[in-house]
Amino acid sequence: MLDCAIIGGGPAGLTAGLYASRGGLQNVSLFEMGVPGGQITKSSEIENYPGFFDSTKTGLVFMDTWQKQCFAFGLKHEMKKVNSVQKTGEYFTVMYDGGDTVESKTVIVATGAVPRRAGFKGEDTFYGRGVSTCATCDGFFYKDKPVTVLGGGDTALEEAFFLSNICSDVYVVHRRDEFRAAPSTLDRAIRKENIHFITDSVIEEAVGDTMGLTGVDIRNVKTDEITHMDNTGLFVFVGQDVKNDVLKNEKGEFICEVNELGQAVVNLKMHTSVEGLFVAGDLRIDAPKQVVSAAGDGAIAALQAISYIQEQQ
Amino acid sequence: MLDCAIIGGGPAGLTAGLYASRGGLQNVSLFEMGVPGGQITKSSEIENYPGFFDSTKTGLVFMDTWQKQCFAFGLKHEMKKVNSVQKTGEYFTVMYDGGDTVESKTVIVATGAVPRRAGFKGEDTFYGRGVSTCATCDGFFYKDKPVTVLGGGDTALEEAFFLSNICSDVYVVHRRDEFRAAPSTLDRAIRKENIHFITDSVIEEAVGDTMGLTGVDIRNVKTDEITHMDNTGLFVFVGQDVKNDVLKNEKGEFICEVNELGQAVVNLKMHTSVEGLFVAGDLRIDAPKQVVSAAGDGAIAALQAISYIQEQQ
Repeated sequence: MLDCAIIGGGPAGLTAGLYASRGGLQNVSLFEMGVPGGQITKSSEIENYPGFFDSTKTGLVFMDTWQKQCFAFGLKHEMKKVNSVQKTGEYFTVMYDGGDTVESKTVIVATGAVPRRAGFKGEDTFYGRGVSTCATCDGFFYKDKPVTVLGGGDTALEEAFFLSNICSDVYVVHRRDEFRAAPSTLDRAIRKENIHFITDSVIEEAVGDTMGLTGVDIRNVKTDEITHMDNTGLFVFVGQDVKNDVLKNEKGEFICEVNELGQAVVNLKMHTSVEGLFVAGDLRIDAPKQVVSAAGDGAIAALQAISYIQEQQ
Repeated sequence: MLDCAIIGGGPAGLTAGLYASRGGLQNVSLFEMGVPGGQITKSSEIENYPGFFDSTKTGLVFMDTWQKQCFAFGLKHEMKKVNSVQKTGEYFTVMYDGGDTVESKTVIVATGAVPRRAGFKGEDTFYGRGVSTCATCDGFFYKDKPVTVLGGGDTALEEAFFLSNICSDVYVVHRRDEFRAAPSTLDRAIRKENIHFITDSVIEEAVGDTMGLTGVDIRNVKTDEITHMDNTGLFVFVGQDVKNDVLKNEKGEFICEVNELGQAVVNLKMHTSVEGLFVAGDLRIDAPKQVVSAAGDGAIAALQAISYIQEQQ
């Protein structure tokens, strides 16, 4: 019997593990198929995690200390895929891929959400080195420089607006000439002088060299004409996949309350609608998708799991 | 006119400043009378801030990097005491001690809450070196060792319970023989084998040497008898002062919704009941009082301040 099962090994899951094990819980396992660390390990540079201010260090190096620290107090890493979680009476049954199970008094799900890739040539090559899915994280690296944004939804235009306050010019590339974004959001973006729209167009290729991205080839889908732009930043906002499979039962129904995007509804204590089940990080509603906030969530979820177990005693 | 006024220079305020200035806001000021850093600067060692894992470094050293980083993107530090904040029409008026004012489009209040000192001899001398006000932060330093807890309220007993899962024995010293804590909390603590109660007693003195605390002198208030205990950890839970003065108008009324403890009511976006006014860190309801969570709040508040300003444009 576990005291706490943590599913997902990004900043939220790791921090939950640190707090749960250091907080005196006896059997705490973190389930993650690969090396823990999360999306941030793909970044070449991090400036906005307070206390970590060394531009020579990559996301992988950054998370290396985290791992050592979070596993230093007894947290176990289980390289197992968790398919689902079920509350049976007082406890939870954690079901692995393959059919085996383990019981746990509490569960913290921190499987996150992954930005979708658009699929153009060079996207993976330059991801974290010029191609980004986070304006908050990476916008500042392109201060007073022109950048390209791919996408036409609310997020794309809001992030374009965010970038327009930092970058010299923001070129929004969108496949259609109509936008899915809310009219008010679109109006605001249109009124902003340094936001420019390139409609009926897609990114054909992200191009660069060993230092990273140097520009983008934009193709007009009606004329097939290709235009090259020497922009150093390319921000891709074409949706995200909320990783909520663990929160579904075998019938595909959610075991706790979620919103219309499939994000878990939580309160300030990271409580879901199921007692003893907590969600932390990008999987929850209103997540700002920042390492420090996900970590903050993880700490809260673990402290609440400890309280929950105490109250049952 | 400021884009954002941040009041309070602990982890929440500093992180808000980092995110607001790096996020493209033009005039961002952080108001803090002393050197920014917050309560954590008084700690001799930090183990539970993810990414910072060096037992040779103190809280003061830890916050030094934060300060450099948070002020690297244009945030200004104003050594001014803010007395109150008032929303007049669209904007806020920030009023300094002495009568001067500045206008701001948004305000983030992160003035925190300070644990009360009990006032015994040696308390200040060994604060951060054996005397603690945070079981979550410091309990693990006394793993499998006996510790003393001072206090008789809900927090004291819940924290004693938290410590009982880590430490060998927990001695709860309480001035009276009745407890203010909820009966269920008290019952749970009484049932826990390694929690012991020393009632009708106070801490006479925290004693130690250059390395830190080595023990406590406990005085029975009825007999005046003094007992010395060789405990290395002393946790003081005698209440806290919520630093909410900035949220009060000249009549002493709160300008936004607060709970019965005077903590600001916020949602997951750190919105208060007043548009454009955000609260982050220990001043808000349900705050876990952890550096990483306060920092996470600060990031959220700043991103929401940026969104709020964007929506007004």
